[in-house]
Amino acid sequence: MSKIRTVLFGLGTVNTGLLKILRDKRSYLKDHYNAEFVIVGVTDSSGLAFDADGFDYDQLIDLKARKGKVHSLPAYAKGVSSEFITEYIHQADLLIESSPADLQTGGPGLIVAKESLRKGWSVVFANKAPLVLAFDELKELSVMYGSSMRWSATVCGGLPVINVLQRDMKATTNYILQQMEEGGNQEEAIREAQRIGAAEADPSHDTKGYDTANKLLIIMKTFVDYRGTLAGITIEGIESVTPLQIAEAKARGNKIKLLASAAREDGQWKLAIKPTEVSAQSFLGTCNGWEMGIELETDLYELICMKNYEADPVGTSAAVLRDALDISLSK
Amino acid sequence: MSKIRTVLFGLGTVNTGLLKILRDKRSYLKDHYNAEFVIVGVTDSSGLAFDADGFDYDQLIDLKARKGKVHSLPAYAKGVSSEFITEYIHQADLLIESSPADLQTGGPGLIVAKESLRKGWSVVFANKAPLVLAFDELKELSVMYGSSMRWSATVCGGLPVINVLQRDMKATTNYILQQMEEGGNQEEAIREAQRIGAAEADPSHDTKGYDTANKLLIIMKTFVDYRGTLAGITIEGIESVTPLQIAEAKARGNKIKLLASAAREDGQWKLAIKPTEVSAQSFLGTCNGWEMGIELETDLYELICMKNYEADPVGTSAAVLRDALDISLSK
Repeated sequence: MSKIRTVLFGLGTVNTGLLKILRDKRSYLKDHYNAEFVIVGVTDSSGLAFDADGFDYDQLIDLKARKGKVHSLPAYAKGVSSEFITEYIHQADLLIESSPADLQTGGPGLIVAKESLRKGWSVVFANKAPLVLAFDELKELSVMYGSSMRWSATVCGGLPVINVLQRDMKATTNYILQQMEEGGNQEEAIREAQRIGAAEADPSHDTKGYDTANKLLIIMKTFVDYRGTLAGITIEGIESVTPLQIAEAKARGNKIKLLASAAREDGQWKLAIKPTEVSAQSFLGTCNGWEMGIELETDLYELICMKNYEADPVGTSAAVLRDALDISLSK
Repeated sequence: MSKIRTVLFGLGTVNTGLLKILRDKRSYLKDHYNAEFVIVGVTDSSGLAFDADGFDYDQLIDLKARKGKVHSLPAYAKGVSSEFITEYIHQADLLIESSPADLQTGGPGLIVAKESLRKGWSVVFANKAPLVLAFDELKELSVMYGSSMRWSATVCGGLPVINVLQRDMKATTNYILQQMEEGGNQEEAIREAQRIGAAEADPSHDTKGYDTANKLLIIMKTFVDYRGTLAGITIEGIESVTPLQIAEAKARGNKIKLLASAAREDGQWKLAIKPTEVSAQSFLGTCNGWEMGIELETDLYELICMKNYEADPVGTSAAVLRDALDISLSK
């Protein structure tokens, strides 16, 4: 039996979802992968707790169900903030970085991810902020210290976009990628953004296209050795779309979708997020509601399309588990 | 530089397509994967040829362009039939099994695949016959002799259905799978397929649903430990569909597609191939012409859909290359 000593960095939806899967599939994981995840540390905004013998999955699930905090656990390290967990835990195999995204500095998640890689722990990311801000540095650390990292949960939840691009599109040297994001009804979202008004303070992260840009950056860092940053992406959100444009598009049998795209022009990658008119019959045009879609045209594989319907964040937790198993099984 | 000594078993569309990719991407493969494929043996219906120093890619491509046979190569082993290649080649790393499908006995492809695994060579399959007839035995040999096998090219060409199911849907314990084979105008599709060499020579194989059943069997052998055989699949082809049924479906806003499906009922897998009415707006309903699609509903990942458009068999050759690289890089 391979015991995977695991640190949960953050105890929100993704990691509690993961704990539920680990509980429900405990015997399946033993039988099929000879693997058991032993939770040796856990953090949230109240601090950290650690236990080399492992926390009971249900204890942590119940804690969050009661809206409790890590500070109420007996194993709580009083007065120590979460980013010091790598100093309190000497023996671990894996850190799961699912803390809240801090896209300004990377926050404690970035600090802890780096420190984990330096200690030779594997890191699975569900939080995309560290990757958006420091992908190249994290990869270098993982190479330098021989530690592994995976991040398939950061883009499109359970849809294995990252893994397919990284593993299954090998030897692709020329491609056009288009990705569509959607949370709920896009047209409704556009109207809502329009109603609120573009000049309004703090329009949502989503309607401005920044979240889509974050995902595109991670995809490009994964798929090709793209060295750019967010600053290199042209970003236009849906708040500029007018009701007239929507109506005109509809009259042409089209829909307006917020697309992320990457294409090589004159030897340079051109990355953009912008509202784009697509045929209502096309693959991206038929991605609706809670669906996320990706369309990839490559020199070797012609056209490949993937989408998922994911209203429940369980897919993201399952993606974390898939990555965690991948890392553990490849050792 | 890692030199991968490779035997091409069969020199038809898939392996000549592979040779063209190897030629065109030679420096990319060196730079990115530190890999060079050295073709130490090649076979076709005329027999075998072998050369420890490696054949020139262009020599083999040109041979086929001129509709030539292996027997015209200087390195031809006179009077020896192709299945003895494992006796003539002492040092190889990889066999690529792309010989014509013999679904009655498995033919020379099955003999050579087994013998290769026994010799510790890796085997990449583009021919599905050996897998359909002897999947369990081949897997056992690969475990017994510590040799690797991959077969992502056998289902949906470049679309990484096999890899996604095997690697990215980990810990899935309950699911419903639906897969769709070429839609659009079937007769036209079949004629066109024969013209470019992407379909079996006998079109009844496709229209009767047997080819779809072969793929479903391989998918199930890959995804779950399904121990059944083709005989356990209920097969109904499209030749029973009448123009009236098509018209009636259309009036209801539906289309008739040849679907392969797998679902667990009362603890038993139920596998079937049959013409099925689906909404014209649904994912499978919008797969047309040269598209192949798969829809997977799982307990952890909700709904995941993938499709590809692949008129040119280059995607299948690229899938062989992806598998060959996977095997070589994981060593």
